[in-house]
Amino acid sequence: MILAQFNLWVAEIRNDRARGASELARRALELLAEAARTLPAVDALEVRIGLSGLADALSAARPSMAPIGNLLRRWRDSSTPPADSTLAAARELAAEGAEALIAASRRAVTECAAHAARLLGPGRTVMTHSLSSTVMETCRLLKDDGLRMIVTEARPLGEGRQLVERLSAWRVPTTCITDAQMGLFVAQADAVLVGADSVLADGTVVNKAGTYPLALAARDRGVPFHVCCESFKWRAPDQPAPELEEMAAAELGMPDWPAVTVRNVYFDLTPARLVSAWIDETGARRPPAEP
Amino acid sequence: MILAQFNLWVAEIRNDRARGASELARRALELLAEAARTLPAVDALEVRIGLSGLADALSAARPSMAPIGNLLRRWRDSSTPPADSTLAAARELAAEGAEALIAASRRAVTECAAHAARLLGPGRTVMTHSLSSTVMETCRLLKDDGLRMIVTEARPLGEGRQLVERLSAWRVPTTCITDAQMGLFVAQADAVLVGADSVLADGTVVNKAGTYPLALAARDRGVPFHVCCESFKWRAPDQPAPELEEMAAAELGMPDWPAVTVRNVYFDLTPARLVSAWIDETGARRPPAEP
Repeated sequence: MILAQFNLWVAEIRNDRARGASELARRALELLAEAARTLPAVDALEVRIGLSGLADALSAARPSMAPIGNLLRRWRDSSTPPADSTLAAARELAAEGAEALIAASRRAVTECAAHAARLLGPGRTVMTHSLSSTVMETCRLLKDDGLRMIVTEARPLGEGRQLVERLSAWRVPTTCITDAQMGLFVAQADAVLVGADSVLADGTVVNKAGTYPLALAARDRGVPFHVCCESFKWRAPDQPAPELEEMAAAELGMPDWPAVTVRNVYFDLTPARLVSAWIDETGARRPPAEP
Repeated sequence: MILAQFNLWVAEIRNDRARGASELARRALELLAEAARTLPAVDALEVRIGLSGLADALSAARPSMAPIGNLLRRWRDSSTPPADSTLAAARELAAEGAEALIAASRRAVTECAAHAARLLGPGRTVMTHSLSSTVMETCRLLKDDGLRMIVTEARPLGEGRQLVERLSAWRVPTTCITDAQMGLFVAQADAVLVGADSVLADGTVVNKAGTYPLALAARDRGVPFHVCCESFKWRAPDQPAPELEEMAAAELGMPDWPAVTVRNVYFDLTPARLVSAWIDETGARRPPAEP
């Protein structure tokens, strides 16, 4: 009964194509808090075992998305109830710990965006690819400061359109293009700003497929390329690069041709050498100067 | 009456989104041949005036596509009937001249593809973007020699799918991807081979939007980037770079959002420094060695 519910929650995280990594990490913490309050248990040890198992499964559901694993690891470090506490105290510690991390994650997005907005400055044309909550928040901060945006649609599901819709509601002058036009339009931007699903310890950026060619085009045209994400998204040096998640080929809407394999890898890797600045809730970091 | 027919023909060339530049150039020559045989005229001078006007309008219909202008210019140089010829001779000279150029253009595609196939060699994995008759012919030549292909869909209209369909019929193992995945897959290719809508005198390649970021990714991953097209597609040094054609925004299928401009530029420019070889019907040319 409990396992059936846990499985449904893990499947929700695994199958979500709409939310970015941070939002999904917060959703995973919400599920943990709900489990802490409601899972059938006779003592603190049962709560601990049940939540630990759920946290493991939620972390494994989206291996490309570092914040899920990172926030759940923090939750485990701070909020795993000791086996000798009362049942009620165990539930409370675990649930409040998860909720505190949700709040911290939200704050980090806001602080990232504030640093990004300061780095970009007013009156800029900014290009982005796909959808990122930190980029959207940065746009909100700059929307009355002469911001203009260039946004790719981000095939196959077109999350870029969600950002365009919001920008339109804010009346930010926005140019919306196919992914294939990125090389044409990047030269019109003062800067590129993208989010990240995760960042490797060496600064390599894991983000929606298309980010790497956009970074190449930005470098080729002399346009700064900034990455803005919470520190929760950084992987530790001992964490290997994630396997890049591949989604259903059906999302591309291709016929089923003999001898043809339709591929739908969601993320690509942008090497650190193409990044002008990494922005997190503590500020902007530039790459080390060339020797 | 004649003008109405001419206008329909010019509109056909202007509005065609399916055919590449060479195919459209041959279609323009077919229309000239048909006009030569059928346009109402009392003498050779009237034939000459009518055809000359039609050739002008056909050339102007697709400014990004050099072969239309180039082949019609050749037709004008070789096949404009002298005003003192008989009416029948004038019709014949103009029509046969157009048909000879159609045959020469077809031969050039075949010869280009033969050179490209020789340059690539057997057992290769080749990546391409969009649809090109020379690339398709090259694939036909190599299809029984262990060829494997990686093909982008080429938004907004997805001409890449036409190539994939043909490759599937030939049982060439093919990977089909979104344009945004080009940076992920280029490293799996032994070479990139694209066609061109035109090539500027300095070697800059005008081709479907997305070609430039693909060339950047190929260079970044150390994969040769070859351009294969007939010499009819080269622009003379005194011809300026064409305005890059923009098609209806409706092709992207976006809603009509306030403050949002949807852009649909079909072509981008790939600088000569990213090209490993230009292949035409006379063979392959490498860029000059760095000084």
